Amino acid sequence: MSQKVWKIGVAGLGTVGGGLLQFLSERPEFAPAGGRVVVTGVSARSRSRPRSVDISGLTWFDDPVALATSPETDIFVELVGGSDGPAKAAVEAALKAGKPVVTANKALIAEHGAELAVLAEAAGVPLLFEAAVMGGTPAVKMLREAMVGDEVKGVAGILNGTCNFILSEMEAKGSAFADVLADAQRMGYAEADPTMDVGGFDAAHKVSILAALAFGCAPNFAAAEIEGITGVDALDIRMARDLGYRIRLIASADISAEGVAVRVHPSLVPEGHPLAETRGALNALFIEGARIGRIFIQGPGAGSGPTAAAVAADIADVMTGARRPVFQAPARDLKPFVAVAPTRRVGKAYLRLLVKDQAGVIAAVSETLAECGVSIDSFLQKPVEDAGGVPIVLTTHAIAESVLTDAINRIEKLPAVLERPRLLRIARI
Amino acid sequence: MSQKVWKIGVAGLGTVGGGLLQFLSERPEFAPAGGRVVVTGVSARSRSRPRSVDISGLTWFDDPVALATSPETDIFVELVGGSDGPAKAAVEAALKAGKPVVTANKALIAEHGAELAVLAEAAGVPLLFEAAVMGGTPAVKMLREAMVGDEVKGVAGILNGTCNFILSEMEAKGSAFADVLADAQRMGYAEADPTMDVGGFDAAHKVSILAALAFGCAPNFAAAEIEGITGVDALDIRMARDLGYRIRLIASADISAEGVAVRVHPSLVPEGHPLAETRGALNALFIEGARIGRIFIQGPGAGSGPTAAAVAADIADVMTGARRPVFQAPARDLKPFVAVAPTRRVGKAYLRLLVKDQAGVIAAVSETLAECGVSIDSFLQKPVEDAGGVPIVLTTHAIAESVLTDAINRIEKLPAVLERPRLLRIARI
Repeated sequence: MSQKVWKIGVAGLGTVGGGLLQFLSERPEFAPAGGRVVVTGVSARSRSRPRSVDISGLTWFDDPVALATSPETDIFVELVGGSDGPAKAAVEAALKAGKPVVTANKALIAEHGAELAVLAEAAGVPLLFEAAVMGGTPAVKMLREAMVGDEVKGVAGILNGTCNFILSEMEAKGSAFADVLADAQRMGYAEADPTMDVGGFDAAHKVSILAALAFGCAPNFAAAEIEGITGVDALDIRMARDLGYRIRLIASADISAEGVAVRVHPSLVPEGHPLAETRGALNALFIEGARIGRIFIQGPGAGSGPTAAAVAADIADVMTGARRPVFQAPARDLKPFVAVAPTRRVGKAYLRLLVKDQAGVIAAVSETLAECGVSIDSFLQKPVEDAGGVPIVLTTHAIAESVLTDAINRIEKLPAVLERPRLLRIARI
Repeated sequence: MSQKVWKIGVAGLGTVGGGLLQFLSERPEFAPAGGRVVVTGVSARSRSRPRSVDISGLTWFDDPVALATSPETDIFVELVGGSDGPAKAAVEAALKAGKPVVTANKALIAEHGAELAVLAEAAGVPLLFEAAVMGGTPAVKMLREAMVGDEVKGVAGILNGTCNFILSEMEAKGSAFADVLADAQRMGYAEADPTMDVGGFDAAHKVSILAALAFGCAPNFAAAEIEGITGVDALDIRMARDLGYRIRLIASADISAEGVAVRVHPSLVPEGHPLAETRGALNALFIEGARIGRIFIQGPGAGSGPTAAAVAADIADVMTGARRPVFQAPARDLKPFVAVAPTRRVGKAYLRLLVKDQAGVIAAVSETLAECGVSIDSFLQKPVEDAGGVPIVLTTHAIAESVLTDAINRIEKLPAVLERPRLLRIARI
């Protein structure tokens, strides 16, 4: 194990980049494989912005592409973010120049992972992205390396800490989504523009990456079915709880003879289930292997410390000289991603109706459901103040999504029904 | 990524070896790093024993050392078991001959890991043992590879499925240890000689390995403090439950300025805690990192499928050409393992007394505890049929183990106390 010096170029100096620079300056010999690490060059949007780390001794690059291809860069670390623009240009340039790349950029890998994998494998250099999913909790390494002696059937979990924090707070305080979001923004748990998180897109990026690692198919963010948490009502959280469930934003990927289904939905999870017990900004994931069975991992999904630690672990991996494909199979052998149509989903569902307080409503609803072939598992009607009507919730046995949509369309048209029924899935985990 | 053929020699053809042979024959190109795997030679105690896999086409070796050093062996897989004898001889021979070694042998690594690591690193070949701890759940990879960008402060968990199965069954059925053990033996969850499992030694082997990976010290099984579950009484399970706890065999390793403490104890875990909710033969582990925080993993800890999958993943790792030390640091740099004396432990405790049904007993016990400086957190006395006396349980605030031992010695001598008080630790997790 040589005492080689590895020169690192870091593009992006936000909290993760700052945390990484500090760690590497304090522990330049952290990598067990031997060798020293030294950050030589950096790039960021603003050179003069006040920073917690001193970058005066480092070479500054206005253009991350120039940093990525500099002869002084042995490993290029991309912490710029964004699926396109400078991040993509710099990663492509680094790979084409034969430089190993470490990135925390989930959007980039979920949207362009297959083409970047081709570049990396052509150059024979690693492209690593542990920090892109679950921060310091090594979901990527588990799927890429530890599960190769098995066949992964599916993954499901909580991959967005912001949404889980908001749902946990709504649950604990009975507050409305908008109020909790505003709190989360004040506390730094949510961005000023929260769309990527609360819209479910961040979780969808992450689970698209996990699907590629799990099933050996090209990541296909465009095929993900995405529903965020903006429509989750405090009333649903309360009613679900009365039925023994909590609501979580569940990201899942499953493979079957029909193809791959990648989904992000606010979903009901039974109380006591490890995903129901995953609160606050934690992330959690189930991995289902044909031979290993179910593995569960839980840990912090974000934050400067954990994310920088994951980037450092990837740098250490580059230093081992390991050669393996970027995803579960070499890029040229990745299976095409055949998406299962959302209407083909079969599962249990939660429906919440708001109806007029008059006789015969329940009969009308149940008749409609029976006509559509929807079989009811549980039923709850209770008076709720200020709900603007009488809420009725029911859960169904497993049923095709197409049948459910038909039933919802018909129930919506019943005269006593005040609004389109609210549908939430019951997680199959 | 070359299409090299990797010739595998497998010593030990029990359920794991059989599962591995079947997997490798069905999926010889399973490793993403490329190349084909073919099992060329095998060795086991009996050549003629009926087996589920056909070994007629493979070269038979009576002596695993000859298999380990055969020119036809590129990777030597050791599934013989045992800390010494043929397993150790064969692994040493393989490493000296420059062959990568994959093993599932926790006793071997826990007791001789440091010297084997020296051999492996001198030869520049991997010595991998993912299957030795938690079966298919990649605890070893997580600590060796994913946590290198952090400092691990401690690990704690359930590492022996047999003990957890027995404790879960005692809890569910209110049965005595001996009865549940007999059931477990009939069902194949416990060996004919269960000492390694129920005595806590298997868990101690595993956590000794995790300590070496976590802290960069040489594994030191001899320094582990070990208490098994043979002394856990159905009465304690019931009383602990009344106080809101479950009893689990907790294996832990912690590092502090004083040194390293590796411990295996039946311990109380609060209901609702992930380790309390880990039931049956499952394994689970918390990893506490200074920067990442707490990561939790849970999964099947044994069984032919998961264990063979872990061995296969290690074979795939060998094929990547990665070079890293066997433990957290190169063998020559492993820190000496400074064990913390058991009496230095500070923690909460559970004491169960059996006393005569007479006035003044509680006063006498509480006075003695007060004199010793033991501060009581909760207290429970309740009539229990057939207990041969009145059971009293109490839990203490955090206290030094030496103080506790003194108090137990003095309580034992009180005239109304029928037997030596039973001590269980309350897990610090």
